[in-house]
Amino acid sequence: MNQDYIQPDNWSIIEEGFDKERVKSSESLFSIGNGAMGQRANFEEQYTGPTFQGSYIAGVYYPDKTRVGWWKNGYPEYFAKVLNAPNWIGINVEINGEQLDLNTCVSVSNFRRELNMQEGWLSRSFTATLQNNLEIEVKVLRFLSLDLDEVGAINYQVTPLNGEATIKFQPYLDSGITNEDTNWDDQFWDTLNVSTENEQAFIEAKTMKTGFHTCTFMQSSVFVNNTKQEQRPETDKQENAISFTYTVSVNAGETASIQKFGGYTVDRNHDKNQLVSAAKRALHTASNLGFNALLNKQKEAWSKIWEMSDITIDGDVKAQQGIRFNIFQLNQTYLGKDSTLNIGPKGFTGEKYGGSTYWDTEAYCIPFYMATKDQKVARSLLQYRYNHLEKAIENAEKLGFKNGAALYPMVTMNGEECHNEWEITFEEIHRNGAIAFAIFNYYRYTGDYSYIPEMGLEVLIGIARFWQQRATFSTDKNKYVILGVTGPNEYENNINNNFYTNYLAKWCIDYALEQIEKVKEGHHEDYLRIAGKTKITHEELHTWKKVADNMFFPYSEKHQVYLQQDGFLDKELITVADLPKADRPINQKWSWDRILRSPYIKQADTLQGFYFFEDQFSTEELKRHFDFYEPFTVHESSLSPCVHSIQAAKLDQMEQAYTFYLRTSRLDLDDYNKEVEEGLHITSMAGTWMSIVEGFGGMRVKNDTLHFEPRIPKEWEAYSFKVNFRDQILKVNVSQSETTFELEGNTDLNIQVNDNLVTVSPNNLVKI
Amino acid sequence: MNQDYIQPDNWSIIEEGFDKERVKSSESLFSIGNGAMGQRANFEEQYTGPTFQGSYIAGVYYPDKTRVGWWKNGYPEYFAKVLNAPNWIGINVEINGEQLDLNTCVSVSNFRRELNMQEGWLSRSFTATLQNNLEIEVKVLRFLSLDLDEVGAINYQVTPLNGEATIKFQPYLDSGITNEDTNWDDQFWDTLNVSTENEQAFIEAKTMKTGFHTCTFMQSSVFVNNTKQEQRPETDKQENAISFTYTVSVNAGETASIQKFGGYTVDRNHDKNQLVSAAKRALHTASNLGFNALLNKQKEAWSKIWEMSDITIDGDVKAQQGIRFNIFQLNQTYLGKDSTLNIGPKGFTGEKYGGSTYWDTEAYCIPFYMATKDQKVARSLLQYRYNHLEKAIENAEKLGFKNGAALYPMVTMNGEECHNEWEITFEEIHRNGAIAFAIFNYYRYTGDYSYIPEMGLEVLIGIARFWQQRATFSTDKNKYVILGVTGPNEYENNINNNFYTNYLAKWCIDYALEQIEKVKEGHHEDYLRIAGKTKITHEELHTWKKVADNMFFPYSEKHQVYLQQDGFLDKELITVADLPKADRPINQKWSWDRILRSPYIKQADTLQGFYFFEDQFSTEELKRHFDFYEPFTVHESSLSPCVHSIQAAKLDQMEQAYTFYLRTSRLDLDDYNKEVEEGLHITSMAGTWMSIVEGFGGMRVKNDTLHFEPRIPKEWEAYSFKVNFRDQILKVNVSQSETTFELEGNTDLNIQVNDNLVTVSPNNLVKI
Repeated sequence: MNQDYIQPDNWSIIEEGFDKERVKSSESLFSIGNGAMGQRANFEEQYTGPTFQGSYIAGVYYPDKTRVGWWKNGYPEYFAKVLNAPNWIGINVEINGEQLDLNTCVSVSNFRRELNMQEGWLSRSFTATLQNNLEIEVKVLRFLSLDLDEVGAINYQVTPLNGEATIKFQPYLDSGITNEDTNWDDQFWDTLNVSTENEQAFIEAKTMKTGFHTCTFMQSSVFVNNTKQEQRPETDKQENAISFTYTVSVNAGETASIQKFGGYTVDRNHDKNQLVSAAKRALHTASNLGFNALLNKQKEAWSKIWEMSDITIDGDVKAQQGIRFNIFQLNQTYLGKDSTLNIGPKGFTGEKYGGSTYWDTEAYCIPFYMATKDQKVARSLLQYRYNHLEKAIENAEKLGFKNGAALYPMVTMNGEECHNEWEITFEEIHRNGAIAFAIFNYYRYTGDYSYIPEMGLEVLIGIARFWQQRATFSTDKNKYVILGVTGPNEYENNINNNFYTNYLAKWCIDYALEQIEKVKEGHHEDYLRIAGKTKITHEELHTWKKVADNMFFPYSEKHQVYLQQDGFLDKELITVADLPKADRPINQKWSWDRILRSPYIKQADTLQGFYFFEDQFSTEELKRHFDFYEPFTVHESSLSPCVHSIQAAKLDQMEQAYTFYLRTSRLDLDDYNKEVEEGLHITSMAGTWMSIVEGFGGMRVKNDTLHFEPRIPKEWEAYSFKVNFRDQILKVNVSQSETTFELEGNTDLNIQVNDNLVTVSPNNLVKI
Repeated sequence: MNQDYIQPDNWSIIEEGFDKERVKSSESLFSIGNGAMGQRANFEEQYTGPTFQGSYIAGVYYPDKTRVGWWKNGYPEYFAKVLNAPNWIGINVEINGEQLDLNTCVSVSNFRRELNMQEGWLSRSFTATLQNNLEIEVKVLRFLSLDLDEVGAINYQVTPLNGEATIKFQPYLDSGITNEDTNWDDQFWDTLNVSTENEQAFIEAKTMKTGFHTCTFMQSSVFVNNTKQEQRPETDKQENAISFTYTVSVNAGETASIQKFGGYTVDRNHDKNQLVSAAKRALHTASNLGFNALLNKQKEAWSKIWEMSDITIDGDVKAQQGIRFNIFQLNQTYLGKDSTLNIGPKGFTGEKYGGSTYWDTEAYCIPFYMATKDQKVARSLLQYRYNHLEKAIENAEKLGFKNGAALYPMVTMNGEECHNEWEITFEEIHRNGAIAFAIFNYYRYTGDYSYIPEMGLEVLIGIARFWQQRATFSTDKNKYVILGVTGPNEYENNINNNFYTNYLAKWCIDYALEQIEKVKEGHHEDYLRIAGKTKITHEELHTWKKVADNMFFPYSEKHQVYLQQDGFLDKELITVADLPKADRPINQKWSWDRILRSPYIKQADTLQGFYFFEDQFSTEELKRHFDFYEPFTVHESSLSPCVHSIQAAKLDQMEQAYTFYLRTSRLDLDDYNKEVEEGLHITSMAGTWMSIVEGFGGMRVKNDTLHFEPRIPKEWEAYSFKVNFRDQILKVNVSQSETTFELEGNTDLNIQVNDNLVTVSPNNLVKI
């Protein structure tokens, strides 16, 4: 844990006191988003101290020219970057001739930020003493509307406390922004037109290369003591910016305020020539409702989200705050309305990882969305990969594969590979397996088989073909081997026979073969269409089977464990506990070669396999592998602790499970990895949800039935969660003494709790 | 073989006919140098076609800010670059108002270039038709003086053939030059002062960051039909350039010419405030001698070099031309006068590899310099590494090693690591072994033990310490292993137990232990000094020995060969002969992962070990390993064919040996690797020399005695070479029927030829 300034609170993230050192961290932690757009918690008024400015529009990206030291064949030319979008939140505030700036004013007191997760808004208030000794009180409230997802709203209030003030509010739009992570200092935006109409302003701009057209817009009104001031503002129009200036004078104790609506319209949703008129419509709707009505709708919308997805924890405020922060951020990032969108590792909170799609979505996020949303959302995420199948086939061709083999990219925005580190781009091929696993997992959970004949089977065939071609026969071992890979544990590169990868490869082929048979029998027309399109033959399927049936898995007879890879036992097996503290995190302290030859595991790797394929191993086997690998795991990936938490819970090692839970749920709030300034770890937040539901709750789906093995950490009085299982909503409440189940709707649900079959009837509490 | 335009000739490199496509290749092939400076064969007059401009000064470099895609701990901040130095060769030629430019003139005929290797000069002649139909004949001769190594000379003659001509010769200096390989478009030179005195001009400039001060200078005279024209030129002084303009008018058939002396004085050799006066002295000496006398001295100087280092081949002009080109280029690059200099892989012929020092020097170049120069030259190259020992210890510390362990850099200009690809920078640690081996090899060849107590032992201790710490104990194998390395075969990365590396590591430790004992006994004062400085203890030496005695070597019982690395036999062992031609070179056709998991070997790796430690293996073992690995070797490194040529000769596989010889000796002339535009492969040229002397000649040193096992390819009538063995010069002449030995000097020399001891007496031909 590296920071401890967030106030514990059940529903809000609260910061008290102003510290310039914390500004960038708080900009990440207090980020807001509505699925269509999002932004870091940058101040509206001028701030000349260190800050990381970021506003992001879902699906709008830029292919930045790749930068590498030494080019390797096959590297992509471009790395997609999430774009820092034109700023619409800016409001410069001049008071008696002085720019309000928390970096330069005489003093700041009573500084308080609150991210109210229950209601979906961000507030900030403070008292500042200006150079001329004027004290002012400022209160700002901001939200991005879930209802009108092109619109955000700000209410900015200034009250002079000890004298009169002439206040100039200068709301502005600015498209002269840049990305911090630009590789070659290129401009990413081309401003096309800056225009105004009455008190509305518009900047039309398009992204370079990708040509996404956007209109950034705003409309403002000023008030004195809640009375709207009819005032024609001065307009200042620049090449890449536009501002209005309103001047109001108030006495001590009186409040001058400005309400600003703003946001983006994008040609992903509108004709590119209609963006200004779409913006006008959005502003019209918002201003007709007014700030307060829009805020009320926001509260209602969030209330509905929480109704389904909340997890309560009694008796442990930090744990409660942690899980809600995770659930809140996931919902801010992705709401599943658009199958061309996906979930970037940082969501709308930073530039890192380019806002692109990783295997995180399939391995971590889909279970969360399946259980807390309509199943269409998960289907939408699956369809995203189906839409990219052709690109995945092209990607595999670039690397020498043939005949429709598909290798999904490690990092992508539009289906093309973006990443350029050979050991990851070309070798971290396990990602392909997670995409197949998600199809299996979706059907297991939802029972919706239709996806497989409609789309999934083609994906499974492309992936199986890849694995069959990627495995090679070792005459020495008389088995198929997979050489030169990087597993989920990226602290090993170019290794042979990574257990997780080999196991997943075999599973993918077996599962594809099984589904081909099943579709052939049950959906014959689909089968004929797919067989015609993919040109699968008996001979080909036979070669698949030969690979799957003869796959090699490294195993230690001595330790009775599968080895993470060939040669793992040649390492110096010193546990993490015996590593000097000064050496950690090793990714900051050690050179890369030292990390590679060490036994230290960045994130669950063999254990990730045991997590995915739990049913195929006994609990004794799990225990043996957990006890073998956990001591070498440094969890320097955000995706690691949740898997270990789930497995520790299953093994009834509750102390460990709880420690891992805290680490995953408060990773960003407590800044475990010293990097929260860069943004939040959005995708791993779904892992936190899994730690509770699958870990402590012990929820599984087996044979179309929900299973539970509830446990509770000794630190908690009780916890509860809800899941949507095949359109039936089940609420589970676990306390130290009992577990209760409640069902919504009209139909009974049979579930299994520990070893007992239990029938839950609607509106009838079952206690166990 | 990818090009075939160089005319076969015993002593010269000749190009006939002008082809714009070949300009950059020829600029490399016709490069000239004198050990202190060198330059590509850029035209003196303006050339607006594609060209790669390069003039280089030995030891003057720039630490260019590193560019990487993904930063790893331990990467160096800077990559040293050889600097394109200010241009002194430029002479713009305006004829009747038109700039002479072979890219734009109406036609070019009779174009001919000759690099006369016997005499050390470059000439160029052509007939050009200008826009106004004037035909002119141009003859240019240029050389960089071996005697006055700060000075180069140009004689540039223009003869109008069909009309009169007013010719403006504009000799110039230009410091506004850039490197093609700059990472961030930085300027590398800061021009300090531009000045003239009479017909001399000077540009003082210093390199950014490194602050090398240089003075680039010139002095010119013009002639009509060999009569000097007393003419005050016009001077044009710019910020980064200076030119003189001379105007002469000549009739058809008359010759106008300009002689230009130019070059560099550098603060590596002079006080930085005295560079202009040093330049004046150099110009004074050169112009007092005059162009022709300086050229005669050049011929004499090269004659002396050839006297010692020539290799003759009868009956195979291309083979003869190849070996002389290699010997010529090596001597142009490095003459061994300065122990702060070393041999860059491209010498003075291009920017690639930054002009820095690699293990090439120790593994390939030292044998050539030992046998063809005074032994001080090789000692100087050894001392270069001794001077960098402190930096090598710092480098090891950065990677987590302790207690004086030394890891020499992969690439360096000043002892600091420059390279930034983790799989090479941090893992290609075998380079450390080559540095120790060179110490052994130097003593074996020269018998000069003094280097070891004076300097070498400290280097050996640092290196042994590194290997002891780098090896780790595998309880699984009950042996010491070396994990995570890249061997000489860079088509494998992050492998375990590379045979070559492990063998070298063990050898280094054993050899260091042996030398410590030997110095302790024979040079006790040195021993005490070194023991005090390095703080070696009995306990430490014991830990070294434990590692050396228990080193693991991967071995296949089935094939009876050492394996290149753990798991080599798991690969799909398809030989190069069975690879489709379209797939080669694989480094241009395949993605990196595909190369890595293939069995293909970029350059001799296990066989490199058999080359270094030949005495430790039987010929049967060599044959087994050669037959096992050769079929998988693609020789995509210039350093590979020579080793295979030597071993094929030893195994009496002369067809193979000859093929490899041609490949190594004509690598650049025939542009096997399609990259000669970038510069020449200087360091591998020493390998070509070894192919003849050690390969065909079978020369070895055993027990202080030269051994020979002469063989001759069937394509040759005879070949001869000379070696300087411990200040005795032996000439060896091998024909299809006999081998003769001739000795210079006064003392007999006992040599071993095949299995017979032979005494060679001075000036008395011995026939065998």
